[in-house]
Amino acid sequence: MKNQEEIKMEIKKFSLILALFTIMLFSTKNASAQDKKMIYRIARLQIDSAQLENYKALLKEGAETAVRVEPGVLTLYAVYEKDHPTHVTVFEIYANEDAYKAHIQSPHFLKYKNATKDMVKSLELVDVTPIALGAKPGPIK
Amino acid sequence: MKNQEEIKMEIKKFSLILALFTIMLFSTKNASAQDKKMIYRIARLQIDSAQLENYKALLKEGAETAVRVEPGVLTLYAVYEKDHPTHVTVFEIYANEDAYKAHIQSPHFLKYKNATKDMVKSLELVDVTPIALGAKPGPIK
Repeated sequence: MKNQEEIKMEIKKFSLILALFTIMLFSTKNASAQDKKMIYRIARLQIDSAQLENYKALLKEGAETAVRVEPGVLTLYAVYEKDHPTHVTVFEIYANEDAYKAHIQSPHFLKYKNATKDMVKSLELVDVTPIALGAKPGPIK
Repeated sequence: MKNQEEIKMEIKKFSLILALFTIMLFSTKNASAQDKKMIYRIARLQIDSAQLENYKALLKEGAETAVRVEPGVLTLYAVYEKDHPTHVTVFEIYANEDAYKAHIQSPHFLKYKNATKDMVKSLELVDVTPIALGAKPGPIK
């Protein structure tokens, strides 16, 4: 039979292992939740009407490149209003905060940002939360 | 050799066939263009704050049902603004005008519309034209 000292030591060891295991589990769970924290945003812009065609071409190129080459840029839907063509809206989804930070440092984004800085009369970035994200499978043709 | 009368008749017949063929070709082309004329829209709503949770549940159910059961409802992305939760935006894509007409007569849309009529303080429907529609393949998880 083990003496009291040995039993105490066993309990201490077990407690330590349990504590470490709990910390590991908690960290993993947190990291996983962080990864899944997607960013949803609506950008509302007003564009100088004299430069609208150039602006649209630059936005199209920048947005399509970002979705094609950046794994964390999930959706960029850019549209203009039929009745107010200088009013542009972009619906944006990024995989997480890091993906968004990488995006705004990417060469294609910086090219777009620099080339359009005198075309954009106003820019409003609105953080949003999804209610429903329903879409048919496959790309929109 | 054919006489002049016969030749004239041949030319008339040929002209008629050519005319009919042209009309058919034109009709087909038009019908095809019509089919592909997708509808892109942004709906901007303001909701009674006291009924916001109920409203969001009804919108979620209506939107998800529409995309699931209606072949012509391609995308319904519904979000609310983090800083102004009563401000709701829906980005909508329909396959064509007929699909949209069918949608607003569907039982799930009428249920949503009727149940939320006293919750919606304002509704603005804005027709838009795409600049870029970039999205990763597959549903958003």
